[in-house]
Amino acid sequence: MQQGATEAQIQKIIQRLVEDGFDVHKSTGVIHTVLGGVGGKDDFDTAVVALMEGVKEVHRILAPYKLASRGFNPAGTVIKVGDVEIGGGKIVVMAGPCSVENHDQIERAADIVADGGASIIRGGAFKPRSSPYSFQGLGEEGLILMRNAADRRGLKVISEVMDASQIGLLAAYSDILQIGARNMQNFNLLRELGKLRKPVLLKRGIAATIEEVLLSAEYIMSGGNYEVILCERGIRTFETYTRNTMDLSAIPALQKLSHLPVVADPSHGTGRRDMVPAMARASVAVGCDGLLMEVHHDPDHALSDGAQSLYPEQFSELMKSLRLIAPAGGRTV
Amino acid sequence: MQQGATEAQIQKIIQRLVEDGFDVHKSTGVIHTVLGGVGGKDDFDTAVVALMEGVKEVHRILAPYKLASRGFNPAGTVIKVGDVEIGGGKIVVMAGPCSVENHDQIERAADIVADGGASIIRGGAFKPRSSPYSFQGLGEEGLILMRNAADRRGLKVISEVMDASQIGLLAAYSDILQIGARNMQNFNLLRELGKLRKPVLLKRGIAATIEEVLLSAEYIMSGGNYEVILCERGIRTFETYTRNTMDLSAIPALQKLSHLPVVADPSHGTGRRDMVPAMARASVAVGCDGLLMEVHHDPDHALSDGAQSLYPEQFSELMKSLRLIAPAGGRTV
Amino acid sequence: MQQGATEAQIQKIIQRLVEDGFDVHKSTGVIHTVLGGVGGKDDFDTAVVALMEGVKEVHRILAPYKLASRGFNPAGTVIKVGDVEIGGGKIVVMAGPCSVENHDQIERAADIVADGGASIIRGGAFKPRSSPYSFQGLGEEGLILMRNAADRRGLKVISEVMDASQIGLLAAYSDILQIGARNMQNFNLLRELGKLRKPVLLKRGIAATIEEVLLSAEYIMSGGNYEVILCERGIRTFETYTRNTMDLSAIPALQKLSHLPVVADPSHGTGRRDMVPAMARASVAVGCDGLLMEVHHDPDHALSDGAQSLYPEQFSELMKSLRLIAPAGGRTV
Amino acid sequence: MQQGATEAQIQKIIQRLVEDGFDVHKSTGVIHTVLGGVGGKDDFDTAVVALMEGVKEVHRILAPYKLASRGFNPAGTVIKVGDVEIGGGKIVVMAGPCSVENHDQIERAADIVADGGASIIRGGAFKPRSSPYSFQGLGEEGLILMRNAADRRGLKVISEVMDASQIGLLAAYSDILQIGARNMQNFNLLRELGKLRKPVLLKRGIAATIEEVLLSAEYIMSGGNYEVILCERGIRTFETYTRNTMDLSAIPALQKLSHLPVVADPSHGTGRRDMVPAMARASVAVGCDGLLMEVHHDPDHALSDGAQSLYPEQFSELMKSLRLIAPAGGRTV
Repeated sequence: MQQGATEAQIQKIIQRLVEDGFDVHKSTGVIHTVLGGVGGKDDFDTAVVALMEGVKEVHRILAPYKLASRGFNPAGTVIKVGDVEIGGGKIVVMAGPCSVENHDQIERAADIVADGGASIIRGGAFKPRSSPYSFQGLGEEGLILMRNAADRRGLKVISEVMDASQIGLLAAYSDILQIGARNMQNFNLLRELGKLRKPVLLKRGIAATIEEVLLSAEYIMSGGNYEVILCERGIRTFETYTRNTMDLSAIPALQKLSHLPVVADPSHGTGRRDMVPAMARASVAVGCDGLLMEVHHDPDHALSDGAQSLYPEQFSELMKSLRLIAPAGGRTV
Repeated sequence: MQQGATEAQIQKIIQRLVEDGFDVHKSTGVIHTVLGGVGGKDDFDTAVVALMEGVKEVHRILAPYKLASRGFNPAGTVIKVGDVEIGGGKIVVMAGPCSVENHDQIERAADIVADGGASIIRGGAFKPRSSPYSFQGLGEEGLILMRNAADRRGLKVISEVMDASQIGLLAAYSDILQIGARNMQNFNLLRELGKLRKPVLLKRGIAATIEEVLLSAEYIMSGGNYEVILCERGIRTFETYTRNTMDLSAIPALQKLSHLPVVADPSHGTGRRDMVPAMARASVAVGCDGLLMEVHHDPDHALSDGAQSLYPEQFSELMKSLRLIAPAGGRTV
Repeated sequence: MQQGATEAQIQKIIQRLVEDGFDVHKSTGVIHTVLGGVGGKDDFDTAVVALMEGVKEVHRILAPYKLASRGFNPAGTVIKVGDVEIGGGKIVVMAGPCSVENHDQIERAADIVADGGASIIRGGAFKPRSSPYSFQGLGEEGLILMRNAADRRGLKVISEVMDASQIGLLAAYSDILQIGARNMQNFNLLRELGKLRKPVLLKRGIAATIEEVLLSAEYIMSGGNYEVILCERGIRTFETYTRNTMDLSAIPALQKLSHLPVVADPSHGTGRRDMVPAMARASVAVGCDGLLMEVHHDPDHALSDGAQSLYPEQFSELMKSLRLIAPAGGRTV
Repeated sequence: MQQGATEAQIQKIIQRLVEDGFDVHKSTGVIHTVLGGVGGKDDFDTAVVALMEGVKEVHRILAPYKLASRGFNPAGTVIKVGDVEIGGGKIVVMAGPCSVENHDQIERAADIVADGGASIIRGGAFKPRSSPYSFQGLGEEGLILMRNAADRRGLKVISEVMDASQIGLLAAYSDILQIGARNMQNFNLLRELGKLRKPVLLKRGIAATIEEVLLSAEYIMSGGNYEVILCERGIRTFETYTRNTMDLSAIPALQKLSHLPVVADPSHGTGRRDMVPAMARASVAVGCDGLLMEVHHDPDHALSDGAQSLYPEQFSELMKSLRLIAPAGGRTV
């Protein structure tokens, strides 16, 4: 309560909290009175009392997520995709082109990915482009091409779902469904994915706090789908040299607050091919459970995101250097 | 090009630009060589050449949106919703509760809105809540209640669409469909709304630049729906005293760059009832074409957003003060 | 405390708090134990206990500033500069060029300022330029020219002090000393200005929170100089259309939290002449106590900040429109 | 120029550019006319023409810094402090307490630093505290204590200078002078340090762009002091879990744009002891030339910054893991 809050104001707050099921404890100090509410409704909006007369400030003590919190599974969750484990001792590399463009391109990409030692291929079939005049993806045809390319090399597949109506299609061809940064708070989509029984990779929105990432994971998990992988891919700041600012400290933060595996996407995190290798190495050093990266056999002619796609030889060199760093954290690549 | 770029590097860039249909002009200075590309593909990704060897930096001169640009309709667009005009001499006020909760609540809200002199009622039927455990809206029942409450008082209706599958339902009961900040780059939704022939109010995402707002408007317009209203509702910054930081300068900026009407939402822009009146007055002074605000007959017990909803008497006082400010800009409220 | 915190961890925290003079209250709930510390040292760093084992989070209840808080002078402070009152019923306009360039320029600026009805002239003698190769100001000569131009027209003078060594010089010629945004946390400078007995205008840093602005004011006031004027001049965000994003909601926020007058600087707040009039009008509508603006007889040839300086006729038109808006808030210009 | 710009407007811009010494090239396209200015004044303010009538936008091609740019010393600068080299094959670790508190404390810190294998001790004698009521440092006495502790163990000394008046004192006891984040644009201080002939470590301001960091380095270098070390220590973003968001991609970015060595400060970058080791490892993996970290023999009782100071055993463990990562980048620690 504010300095000088009246007893009537204090009683009004207590009454409001009791209405929502709280037990209220009152501590009177020389300057301030502090009210503590215990119990109450899970979704209680603290802002309601924050604006009442005489209130100085309100703090929520209990995190508004439960299933996603570390306490729910202190040992950490390992997600299995066939024989690939995400969240275990091996750092999982998912790589491939931004979009599936045609048969030849995805086959060449799959070669690069497999030869480099990665275990999962990525590639978009439906592309969320900020301009309506840009290439929008091959749709189901792209998924078929990628699935075949993957199967021939023993790779798993991850691809982005943009809309609840696409879930069936994506689930048919893809081992992991990815939720893009722009859809991190598309709650209808999250709710539908909660009904699925396949792993979901949830990308952090460019303006999302760490708590909001975990609340979005909670949406999916509250539907019964506990196989959620979190992904740091850069946030928007005032700095424009990189497309986004990769918040590497979010990786240990998410791992401390949650039991879910956390992967890093240095391609979107920087938007610049020349910075991807350094930031991928830093991601492994900071303790990520996996990497998601773009690689293309001819980035200069990619139909999307060419500027952040690695050249084949860059990817292969990078994989080698990651293997030198991982053991410092007791892991392999 | 960088200082010291080789002729071979320069030729490679020229060739790459020509491939995409550009005419290239080359200016050689003492320190730098500058290449200018004219023509080319509309969706050319400048980042592709930005990362090529020898390139120092790339600037796009032509804005990537056209239909949304001021040049497309220099006089400015006035959107008619029955006898209500948005973008004309009268500043349009849209007000109502965050969510439609029940018959009594929306009737009381409609009284407050109509008595205050506003012409459009707002209210959510489907609520995008960041926690899966919060109230999610009444759905169609809420829309019916609000439509009836509006019709009895000659008000128009605006309500939010969260998913392409809801468009038919919303279009049946609502005069204007609102796209929430979290969906500003939900491109599937934008594309579907482009096929509609009803006005759409597009809210700026909390991390969206002014250019991105206009690109999202372009998505809708490129489908043939030219009735787009833009809305500033606060961006996310480091300041936490307000829920968001309302970027009032975006209003004259959008009006300069685009012919579309621009409204302000000080309720979400601040997240605090005590700051809404001052920011609403500032929005009128800065030249907005309309206001979108939350008002509730009993904000302390609202099921959502109570903390930013005005009390009835605050709303009525505010409407009076807005009428004093509008004439300074040659307008009425 | 975290869920599952041990009694030993709890006792260790209690002991640490008692060491620093706190009385500690302990509330045990089903899930969490909450410890409340009352009293203790003013400058206690909450982060110290935040990182101790078993602690979930720590919240400071008492604001770390006192002299600057609203409670210290609930009626609000009015600062007198001769017959000019800042913080009273009249909104004070301070205007003039970015830099004093020469006799003719400052005389013409003083004419524009006085003719427009402003009461204080601004102008820099020492310029903090981000490039070492830019014009750095006329120094004392500039101050003499501006003082004379002001005295001939009954204007007061405000000018920026960049360094403690300049305080004597500035105090000799200027009625108000301005602290630039870059120096808002130059604590040596703040401390020295605390010993002065002249009004100080403190600009918000581009990355400073509202609380930090008040802490910097506290620095000055703790030295005995209570005449501090706060100034919102834009913060840095991801939006680049304007040089800074003017946070107009900071004005009512600062007025709620503090008794000190708050002025707005739309010239630096936007960095664009074409947006200054709209944002100046919005600042008056939001309730500012004064305005600080740049005006130049020939902005296209100004030695600094030409792009954000108003043309003389713009300034005169703007002053007229401000007089129409101020009465809506019960004030005059 | 804007679409539809008149010939008169174009001629006015050309004339304005020629006035400032530019050669102007004009390219006329179907939609736009592009004017290119070559030569001109180094400190030309592009905003001046940006706001002239008919202008669409202005881009500066030549970076406004020279001495700090990579092109000035393509091989990279190695700064020698006695036998310690910063910018060479060995990653230099600078560690120590936030403040020098007393003889015993700094001696114990020096033992930890030396035993861990670091070569430079850090410690503040003058503390820039955001509250005027906090511990402000021991002054010269602190410098003497730290110098003695360093000399007894063959360590070098780095300490922060807060004001031009302290330069003599700092230079007498310290091998490297540090400019804090809050002073990054204290141009008077930068100019005075330009006259010194000792290495200066320049911290990035919390809201400073990469270009602004380099412009501040240019200030120092333009005075003749070429021994500048850059330091990334976190920027301010919307995320509040960490005190700042460490922008690790700034390290390779600064190394690409400049020849100066770049060090990382994960203590201030995160503000949380539990994240310092992970971010220190990531800094080495990303390619930093050195680390600046806080360590204290008893962080729970440190007079400042205890929450981000490492425990002695954490520091020693960290040093070991850094030695495993450095070889992946061809370096040692």
